[in-house]
Amino acid sequence: MNVTLHVCTTCRAGEPIEDGAPRPGAQLHAALTEAGAPEGVRIVPVECLSACSQGASVALSAPGKWTYVYGRLRKEDSADILAGAAAYAATDDGLVPWRERPVIFRKQSLARIPPLELPE
Amino acid sequence: MNVTLHVCTTCRAGEPIEDGAPRPGAQLHAALTEAGAPEGVRIVPVECLSACSQGASVALSAPGKWTYVYGRLRKEDSADILAGAAAYAATDDGLVPWRERPVIFRKQSLARIPPLELPE
Repeated sequence: MNVTLHVCTTCRAGEPIEDGAPRPGAQLHAALTEAGAPEGVRIVPVECLSACSQGASVALSAPGKWTYVYGRLRKEDSADILAGAAAYAATDDGLVPWRERPVIFRKQSLARIPPLELPE
Repeated sequence: MNVTLHVCTTCRAGEPIEDGAPRPGAQLHAALTEAGAPEGVRIVPVECLSACSQGASVALSAPGKWTYVYGRLRKEDSADILAGAAAYAATDDGLVPWRERPVIFRKQSLARIPPLELPE
């Protein structure tokens, strides 16, 4: 249980939102939690991943692994996101072979960051 | 010395590159290392931050801090990037007050990711 799937819940995904209506980010978070996290993955809501022009967005991170940020996601993508999170959780370094990544992960990566290294 | 400034050296920044010509990412990395890292910051080259459509790009990370990714950077931005890295290094959590961030950091954030948390 050391992989975190952060989900931006404040994201408007570039859409006008009526007062009180759920935001696309919150809808995505709800769909992911309803579907249920795969083994080894925690779904954690976060206010703003600063990817507002490319929202809704999520980030996958874990100690010792590359971090990945994905954008332009909709609640309909929940199953693919969770499949991608499970594949990520199964790796040692976060690098899932290209062909095993969901298409949305291949095409909608916003950034990846190397694992944190302690100074020598 | 626990902040890492990753610099994508393979980035083409959306430009056609002649054979053998230095890529914008490599030029940015060279300019940053020539200017010199501020105290507490290591400049580390990396091959591809997967932000290719928004390159050249850099990432700031450190244990216990939010990670930030910035894009659309040029070698002329080196002084601002290093000033932003120094301000980041001076924080406990990576959250630099808005007014103290270089303009390129305010306007060219691609994503931010919460600090890694160990599972409860």
